[in-house]
Amino acid sequence: MKYDAHGGNTFAYENIRLDFSVNLNPLGMPREIIEAVQENADKFDAYPDTECRELKRLTAAWENVPEDYIVFGNGAADIIIRICLALRPGKALVTAPAFSEYEKAVREAGGSVERFPLKESDGFLITPDFAGAISPDTDMMFLCTPNNPTGRLTPLDTIREAADACRKAGAVLVIDECFLSFTEGKSCKCLFDEYKNVIVLKAFTKMFSMAGLRLGYMLCPDREIANLVFSVGQSWSVSTPAQVAGAAAMKLYDRPEKTREYLAKERPRVIERLRSIGIKVFDSDANYLLFKDREELWQSCLKEGILIRSCENFHGLDGSFFRIGLKTPEKNDILLDVLEKIISSR
Amino acid sequence: MKYDAHGGNTFAYENIRLDFSVNLNPLGMPREIIEAVQENADKFDAYPDTECRELKRLTAAWENVPEDYIVFGNGAADIIIRICLALRPGKALVTAPAFSEYEKAVREAGGSVERFPLKESDGFLITPDFAGAISPDTDMMFLCTPNNPTGRLTPLDTIREAADACRKAGAVLVIDECFLSFTEGKSCKCLFDEYKNVIVLKAFTKMFSMAGLRLGYMLCPDREIANLVFSVGQSWSVSTPAQVAGAAAMKLYDRPEKTREYLAKERPRVIERLRSIGIKVFDSDANYLLFKDREELWQSCLKEGILIRSCENFHGLDGSFFRIGLKTPEKNDILLDVLEKIISSR
Repeated sequence: MKYDAHGGNTFAYENIRLDFSVNLNPLGMPREIIEAVQENADKFDAYPDTECRELKRLTAAWENVPEDYIVFGNGAADIIIRICLALRPGKALVTAPAFSEYEKAVREAGGSVERFPLKESDGFLITPDFAGAISPDTDMMFLCTPNNPTGRLTPLDTIREAADACRKAGAVLVIDECFLSFTEGKSCKCLFDEYKNVIVLKAFTKMFSMAGLRLGYMLCPDREIANLVFSVGQSWSVSTPAQVAGAAAMKLYDRPEKTREYLAKERPRVIERLRSIGIKVFDSDANYLLFKDREELWQSCLKEGILIRSCENFHGLDGSFFRIGLKTPEKNDILLDVLEKIISSR
Repeated sequence: MKYDAHGGNTFAYENIRLDFSVNLNPLGMPREIIEAVQENADKFDAYPDTECRELKRLTAAWENVPEDYIVFGNGAADIIIRICLALRPGKALVTAPAFSEYEKAVREAGGSVERFPLKESDGFLITPDFAGAISPDTDMMFLCTPNNPTGRLTPLDTIREAADACRKAGAVLVIDECFLSFTEGKSCKCLFDEYKNVIVLKAFTKMFSMAGLRLGYMLCPDREIANLVFSVGQSWSVSTPAQVAGAAAMKLYDRPEKTREYLAKERPRVIERLRSIGIKVFDSDANYLLFKDREELWQSCLKEGILIRSCENFHGLDGSFFRIGLKTPEKNDILLDVLEKIISSR
């Protein structure tokens, strides 16, 4: 049995009792979202609103940005592809490791990719010298904060330097904040007044645990860029279930804070226990943890019905790195017990 | 007030009581689909199955093709774009008029488009000389049967000639059958044994009246092509609501026949009455009708709260052409009464 290219694909395996390969909100999908989908199901016959009017109004208020900064997509992954198709970067810079869809999207839009290696000795932190990797022929740069699969926030000063270097090179800086609201980090929206060449990516998938519904968006203060991304691709990429679920989500004002409060207790507990088992776990600001062990661990966990994310297909990592998304204390304990059993029996 | 680029966008207007601009199934969205979405809503937290396993199994049985001929997308519009991104046609041939997304997709993938004009004097039928328009530098050809917005089937012999000419030119023939099951026409799947360069496009949107859920697919006997289209774009383009709705739809075996029976009675009735009002309506094999009147008719209908599809933005047509999707007899009568009132008061 081989691992899938992405996390969360339990369909590829049999007898999975717990899926730690996915990094959604440990608090689960809110009841309000389920109900919004159920109550509106008889309206799914009509075409979706191509401009997502109601959802946009609520999201603009949530994000405190003008409505015309926002472009919605069929998940953040759809937005990544549309950014590349709309702006056609000849050369793009990505970190290694990073979410693999950046690189795929750049190549599919006909561009080439340069990778900036993050160092294990730095705990895979994005360091200020990242900005120095931007050259005059860089057209686009992808940066994820907190990074995936490392879980580390990038300091805002480092990002500002990157935005500045990008502007000088005539490049667009795409900052993926899909996991930011799980952390105490500040959104790069604060750069919008100063830098128009910045796109911030956001997802409903993670914070609201609604991966099956597919809804993400981007914010960009350059209306020409926003409009180009909106115009590329099909007109109806955002389904009506996604729009009604998103609108319900945008009324759950205390969700991010409640989630962060939960993580502030649970994350250190899990990290501590992993370290006590003897696993090398990296610091994390997010709802998921990167750790290092023997490559065979993945298979051993699978035998126990537990799926963890092998990082073998992340550039800059290998099969000895694993990512787990945090879940409820009860489920985390099951994982921790299994890991302890596997490692103590070596 | 200006008309929208596509039908079905009631969000762009106020006080629409009836939307005839959209061409979905007049029988509406089946109760089974609504219930499937409602009953599965608590599972929409997890990522969708990227390979749509259950849906694929049912669709393969419905279509009587091998599973690996099938690629699903976020609506047929998503598939059109992915075909172009995967195969990158340098030059593509489309009819004029035709669904505008073919041309948009070709251009976004970096290709150019040549239009083959259909003649009003032929009732906009696709005639056999279409195949002659294929030249050695043609890479792709789009053909819609029944055509949109004309509603006319293309004879299978004409399509076979096109498939043959395409093969000689090394081109792929994309046949859009999104409305075929509303007609008595035979699917071009019957060409699969003979021609591997044929892609057939299908949608759940129309026959099952589930446009808001976004689900379409393609069939291709060339597994390399199918795999290329599957691989391009994001991994999770088909949402879980779309997959469960599609699976429910693939159990409604008598839906197409029931729909055709309904149309066989209602279509001639509406055509006859339109003609008695003095409107030039073209013959149609489908669930929608193309007719010609004064350009101002669109605005006059809108004043009555009725949205019809202006064909102004279809190449080969202009603002004096209109498309209406057939609805229930009661709703059709409201439209017919309004049209009669408008035209008799001139």
